[in-house]
Amino acid sequence: MNATGQGWPGRRTSRSAASWGRPTLPAVVAFGGGHGLSASLSALRRITDRLTAIVTVADDGGSSGRLRRELHCLPPGDLRMALAALCGDDESGRTWADVLQYRFPGNGDLAGHAIGNLLIAGLWERLGDPVAGLDMVARLLGAEGRVLPMAAVPLEIEAEVIGLDPLSPDEISHIRGQAQVAKTTAEVRAVNLVPGDPPACPESLQAVHEADWIVLGPGSWFTSVIPHLLVPELAEAIHGTSARRLLSLNLEPAGETAGFSAARHVELLAEHAPHLRLDAVLADQRFAADDPHLAAWVRSLGAELVVADLAVRDGSARHDQLRLASAYAEIMDI
Amino acid sequence: MNATGQGWPGRRTSRSAASWGRPTLPAVVAFGGGHGLSASLSALRRITDRLTAIVTVADDGGSSGRLRRELHCLPPGDLRMALAALCGDDESGRTWADVLQYRFPGNGDLAGHAIGNLLIAGLWERLGDPVAGLDMVARLLGAEGRVLPMAAVPLEIEAEVIGLDPLSPDEISHIRGQAQVAKTTAEVRAVNLVPGDPPACPESLQAVHEADWIVLGPGSWFTSVIPHLLVPELAEAIHGTSARRLLSLNLEPAGETAGFSAARHVELLAEHAPHLRLDAVLADQRFAADDPHLAAWVRSLGAELVVADLAVRDGSARHDQLRLASAYAEIMDI
Repeated sequence: MNATGQGWPGRRTSRSAASWGRPTLPAVVAFGGGHGLSASLSALRRITDRLTAIVTVADDGGSSGRLRRELHCLPPGDLRMALAALCGDDESGRTWADVLQYRFPGNGDLAGHAIGNLLIAGLWERLGDPVAGLDMVARLLGAEGRVLPMAAVPLEIEAEVIGLDPLSPDEISHIRGQAQVAKTTAEVRAVNLVPGDPPACPESLQAVHEADWIVLGPGSWFTSVIPHLLVPELAEAIHGTSARRLLSLNLEPAGETAGFSAARHVELLAEHAPHLRLDAVLADQRFAADDPHLAAWVRSLGAELVVADLAVRDGSARHDQLRLASAYAEIMDI
Repeated sequence: MNATGQGWPGRRTSRSAASWGRPTLPAVVAFGGGHGLSASLSALRRITDRLTAIVTVADDGGSSGRLRRELHCLPPGDLRMALAALCGDDESGRTWADVLQYRFPGNGDLAGHAIGNLLIAGLWERLGDPVAGLDMVARLLGAEGRVLPMAAVPLEIEAEVIGLDPLSPDEISHIRGQAQVAKTTAEVRAVNLVPGDPPACPESLQAVHEADWIVLGPGSWFTSVIPHLLVPELAEAIHGTSARRLLSLNLEPAGETAGFSAARHVELLAEHAPHLRLDAVLADQRFAADDPHLAAWVRSLGAELVVADLAVRDGSARHDQLRLASAYAEIMDI
C-alpha cells in the first residue's frame, strides 16, 4: 500500500467503551448502490462489526423497475444486493443469500425477477414499513450489519447531458430514469432527483449521526454515489455528522463516467454537494497515476489522498476484497 | 367427548426411549391439503412434537396453478398452508407465517400470488430439490414439524362425474383438473390421478414407515383426502406401515361431497383404496347422528368409531383446535 497521507490520524476507539477492555470497532456507514456498494460492504465487514449500508432507491430498470411500477414500492434490487453482501458467514446465510440473488428463468410473469426482490416487496406490502421488512430479511440472512434506504419514497434520477443528438453535440438535454441515465452514450454533466426534496429515512439519518466513519463510493458515479448527496436531509446529516468521511473512488472510469479522470470524479461530487468536506480519498494506483489535478481536488475538500493497489490480481476492474479491506483498515486505523 | 369406542388401546410410548424417563410422544403423519390439513395440523401440534404433514400436489388453480404452468414445479400453495400451520409459536414464526400467507393485491403480474408460494417456487428453482426447499422454509418459520409432498411430480386430478349435462342426468363424464373438480356442480363418483403411477416422495414414504399414527382427513374428500391413496407407492406404505391409522371426517358434507352422508364418505375412501384398514374413525356428533350406515362402514374397515363434539362454538363448520386436539389425544392415548 502506497499511502501518500502520512501518519493518518484515525480513531481506534469509539464512543462506548467495550467490555473486557477490547476496543470497540468503529461504526461505519457505507453509501452506494449496486455492485460498488457490495464491494465496499464485502471489505468493510472484514474490519468492523458495526456496519450500516445506506442504499439508493432510484432504480427503475429490470426487476426493481417492474416491482415499483406494479406495487409503487421502493426499488428493492440494490437493497437486496447489499443484504446479500452482508449475509452470515455460515451455510444458512450463504444459501439464503444465493437464493435471494437468484432470478426466475423463462419468459413468464416472474421471469427476471430476483427471488429476494419479490420477498422484500412482499414484506413491504404486508408490513407497510420498509425498514421493518429489510430488518426481517437481514435476520433471515444472519446479516452482519443493517441495510437501510437513502429515502423513504421511490425516486427518479434526471440527468443533464450533452451530445445526445449527434447533430447538435453541444446542446444540453435531459434524460429521466436511472436505467436510461446508466446506459446513455451522451456525456452526463449533472443529475438531480425527482422529487427534489424527498423525505430521508429516519433510521438512515440516525446511523449517520452515530457513525465514526462514513464511506462514499465506489459505484456508478451519477446513479449510485452522488444521489445520496441530493437528498437534502441526508446531505445535511453527512455534512453535520462528527464522523470522518472517506470517499472511495472507482478503479477506473467506466459506464456513466467513461473517460473521466479521477480528479473529475471528485470535482463532480463537489459540484453536486458544495458543502461537502472529506477526510480521506482512496484511489487505486493505476487510476490515480498521472492525474495532475487529483491531489489538488482532494486537498480542496480538506482530505488526504490515499493511493493503494486495490484491484484483483487477474487484471479485471474489480476490487479485491482483502486489499480494499486493508486500505480501509489503515485509513480508519483499525 | 362421547366416545363410542371404549378403552381405546392407544400406545403411550414410541420406538425410542426418551431421556430422563419422559415418554416419547408418538410420531404422527398427517395427510391432506388445504384448510382441512391446516386444521388437523393446528390440533396435532398441540399433542405431539413429532409431526409430519404429507400434502397433495394436484392443485392447478389460482397462484399455484399459475406457478406450475410457468415453472413446471409442484403446486406450492397447500404446502405453504401446511408450513404456516406449523409455524413457530413466537413472534418471528407468526410474522413469517403471516407474511408467507399474504397475497399481492392489484391486477399486475404478481396479483393474487401468495408471497410464500413465490418463495417456495424460487427455492425449488434454485435448489432443484423440493424437500430441501420446504425444509428451508420450515427452518425460516421455526416450524414445529416437517412438510413433505405426496409425490415427486406435479399431478392432475381427473374425476368421473354424473349430471354434468342437465339433459342427460345419468351420463358419465370426466372432468380434468383439481380446480374444475372442486367447483363442479355435477356429482363426483370417483377420481384418479394423471399420471396414474407417479413417483412418491422418498422422505414421505420413510415418514409413513416410521410413524406411530397416521391421520387421513379432514379436507375436500376427492381433491385433498383420497388422492394420497392413489399414489401407488404411498398407498402401499400406508397399507404396510405398523402405524395405527386414523380417519378424521369432515364436520359436514360440503363442496365436492355436498349432500353425502358420513357413511358415504367412508365408503368412497374404501372404494378408492380397497386394501385400506383403519384403526379409528373420528366423526363430529352432528355429522354422525342419525347415520344408520356409518358404524357398519367403520367396522368393515376394522376401525372403532369415535364420535365427539369437534366444531367451534359459534356454530360455523370449522374444527375447534382444542376440541380436535383433545379427541386426537384421547384416541392416541397421549
